[in-house]
Amino acid sequence: MEKEETRKELKVSAIENGTVIDHIPSNSVFQVVKILNLDEFDNQIFLGTNLDSYKYGKKGIIKVSNRFFKADEINKIALVAPTATLIVIKNFSVVEKKKVEIPDGVEKIVKCFNPNCITNNEPIRTRFTVIDKDELRLKCHYCEKITAKDNISFL
Amino acid sequence: MEKEETRKELKVSAIENGTVIDHIPSNSVFQVVKILNLDEFDNQIFLGTNLDSYKYGKKGIIKVSNRFFKADEINKIALVAPTATLIVIKNFSVVEKKKVEIPDGVEKIVKCFNPNCITNNEPIRTRFTVIDKDELRLKCHYCEKITAKDNISFL
Repeated sequence: MEKEETRKELKVSAIENGTVIDHIPSNSVFQVVKILNLDEFDNQIFLGTNLDSYKYGKKGIIKVSNRFFKADEINKIALVAPTATLIVIKNFSVVEKKKVEIPDGVEKIVKCFNPNCITNNEPIRTRFTVIDKDELRLKCHYCEKITAKDNISFL
Repeated sequence: MEKEETRKELKVSAIENGTVIDHIPSNSVFQVVKILNLDEFDNQIFLGTNLDSYKYGKKGIIKVSNRFFKADEINKIALVAPTATLIVIKNFSVVEKKKVEIPDGVEKIVKCFNPNCITNNEPIRTRFTVIDKDELRLKCHYCEKITAKDNISFL
């Protein structure tokens, strides 16, 4: 198994067990923290942002000790960090690596594009079905209007 | 001058030039990020939280490359991170070290304790004068009621 320490220059400390979220767009790192409620964890968390990346120019990385995420938890970040790689670490070694995937539904993090939607006028959490994962089209659970990719704004 | 690398086990990468904010209570680290607008920076930022600290049990640390803060900017964090130490780094060395200080005024981050205050009923930023820095008593700029230490809640 690939050792985590040998992967390029390790500017953000290696963790013994846990999850690494790599290749996060730099301007989305703290949104990822918020989406995954990482500010409420007791585990050690290491984070670096605006790090050099050959592939993406600038990137962010988050390492969460002793925490392993289910697919439906981690895929929430796919909208803000579509390039993210999820790496499971055990005993300082990489045991699994995969890309995040756009989920079937999105809650809370995206604003409904329809100004008349109840979610823009009452304190109700937004909720969407992803009706097109390639073109990123979200159908609002309440008003049923489509929020298209170019109109996606994050709460 | 003290070299940054020799200070205990360096779990969060040393920076060449910039500012280190150390001894942040672990549950305030991401509030500090928000207060200082660090999510909008282009500079490299390294962060670690729930790190062991002999003095404080658990702590967080943030390192911001190539950024130096004025006293009035950094003292905004004093309410959420009263134990924080500010360390200025140049050429990998510590050139200045000081504690944060409670500022004379606080904006935006604290909620007014008075439910009838205009700031709790209209989209107006909160604003307080700190009338007692030891007992942490905040006087609202609008309704003039006092929000005392035990009633301080963060927005």
